Amino acid sequence: MPLPQLTQARAPLTRAIEVINEHGARETISIPAERDLTVYVDKRELVTLMTLGAHPEWLVLGYLLNQRLIASVNEVESITVDWEVNAASVKTRQGIDRIEERTSRRVVTTGCGQGSVFGHLMDEIDTIRLPAEAGLKQSELYAIVNAIRLKESTYKSAGSVHACALFHGEALQLFVEDVGRHNAVDTIAGWMAMNPAPTLDRSNGSQSSSEKIFYTTGRLTSEMVIKSAQMGVAVVISRSGITQMGLDVAERVGLCAIGRATHQRFLCYANPQRLELDAIPSAAPVARERAASPS
Amino acid sequence: MPLPQLTQARAPLTRAIEVINEHGARETISIPAERDLTVYVDKRELVTLMTLGAHPEWLVLGYLLNQRLIASVNEVESITVDWEVNAASVKTRQGIDRIEERTSRRVVTTGCGQGSVFGHLMDEIDTIRLPAEAGLKQSELYAIVNAIRLKESTYKSAGSVHACALFHGEALQLFVEDVGRHNAVDTIAGWMAMNPAPTLDRSNGSQSSSEKIFYTTGRLTSEMVIKSAQMGVAVVISRSGITQMGLDVAERVGLCAIGRATHQRFLCYANPQRLELDAIPSAAPVARERAASPS
Repeated sequence: MPLPQLTQARAPLTRAIEVINEHGARETISIPAERDLTVYVDKRELVTLMTLGAHPEWLVLGYLLNQRLIASVNEVESITVDWEVNAASVKTRQGIDRIEERTSRRVVTTGCGQGSVFGHLMDEIDTIRLPAEAGLKQSELYAIVNAIRLKESTYKSAGSVHACALFHGEALQLFVEDVGRHNAVDTIAGWMAMNPAPTLDRSNGSQSSSEKIFYTTGRLTSEMVIKSAQMGVAVVISRSGITQMGLDVAERVGLCAIGRATHQRFLCYANPQRLELDAIPSAAPVARERAASPS
Repeated sequence: MPLPQLTQARAPLTRAIEVINEHGARETISIPAERDLTVYVDKRELVTLMTLGAHPEWLVLGYLLNQRLIASVNEVESITVDWEVNAASVKTRQGIDRIEERTSRRVVTTGCGQGSVFGHLMDEIDTIRLPAEAGLKQSELYAIVNAIRLKESTYKSAGSVHACALFHGEALQLFVEDVGRHNAVDTIAGWMAMNPAPTLDRSNGSQSSSEKIFYTTGRLTSEMVIKSAQMGVAVVISRSGITQMGLDVAERVGLCAIGRATHQRFLCYANPQRLELDAIPSAAPVARERAASPS
């Protein structure tokens, strides 16, 4: 089965605006773009996403996968994004079964979480089996945190975006920024579906990504943890903290959740047996400072 | 018409957990609670909110108001929250008109934005008229930023929450933290409805809050700006930045949007005529540093 055909719609990621600062002086700064993208599946309107717009086709594909509206990328024939009309047209090969029913439950998730996670996602947790052998070395974790530090681009120029990244061991595979971090993780899911690893197991529509590591600047909410687990990723690293339901889900699915990861510091919240402490810093621990703002 | 009867359901706001740090040592830290709260309106299930749980009744009331499912607090007879079953039962006086139809459109908003803003909110922007005289002095802005600095409580002990606050001039009226900042602003809307100002104008169901100032630690997304405007608040201050649609909406409704507000610094993104520069710092401006993480 061929992969879906995707357009490569592009649009500016930042916009220069004039502001007044505390001295009453005019300053020109950049802010991130934020666009509405209405998704149509077989000509039926499904949802409107607000996005930076860097990779809209992967975003839409990942959204459909992560919402479990499709079980496999093979169900999609094409995704056509047109920024002239802010629309993404998804053409499926055989339609989406019971789409009305499956999009009818509505859960409003935490803060930076996905707007509307259709309710059955939570029911699905207990069917997820993460690879037992998947893990991470502390030295790899430090390499990942450093790679991210060198990478952020829209954030550096305009702020106000979240970043997610996918690593294979310590090798960066994809770096995505978006105004919503749920978009960033959906975009990664879409990219993964279009770039199957040799170890891809399509029998259940999910990827067996035993060495994949997911990084996010945002908090580890239940939704981020569920989405990572759905993508077959057993180790998640965050610059921020974790919420209670994020922790509950991580423990339930056996996911190694690491947060507050900056420089050489981190906290492992769940499943530390997946983390090999091969690079313990020599300096004595000092009082930990919190990040300046939640995210 | 009497105000609705609200329970005062309480539950712990933080939870102590054990983590492993970068030295391989165990540490006990606090994380914020995160609870699901399913809202039933006249026994019909409406939505599930994920919340810290500090003020669930105001949250539900504000949610109904901000989603425009009710036009006035007078439509509600009671809200009963029971954490034993994670349910909020809303009893209306006369039912909600066309509730099925009005909750059928779905927009997934940016990042920390409300999960599912029912679509007609965006259509409503042009009906909003903010009071022409409402404004803020720079000295008040500094007092507000300082008041917030002294206030954050769950954040200080557990991190990973957003804060919102309502000020009347520089006097703090309500400070709310939640795992989702959309919850924090909804909670403020609920409190405002239960504590009408003397200047309250009920003729159109909205408050005329000409001296009210809204503060948020989160980004100024379109949704935050719309909700503030709906509450009749003409000045919004954020510790973070602004998104493009947030700016567009602020300009369209005439709202004064101020961001990157820390210590004596800030940027006024829109409608600077509402801001009186009465306390310009004497020091020369230096290069501005961005916050450590988006939010």
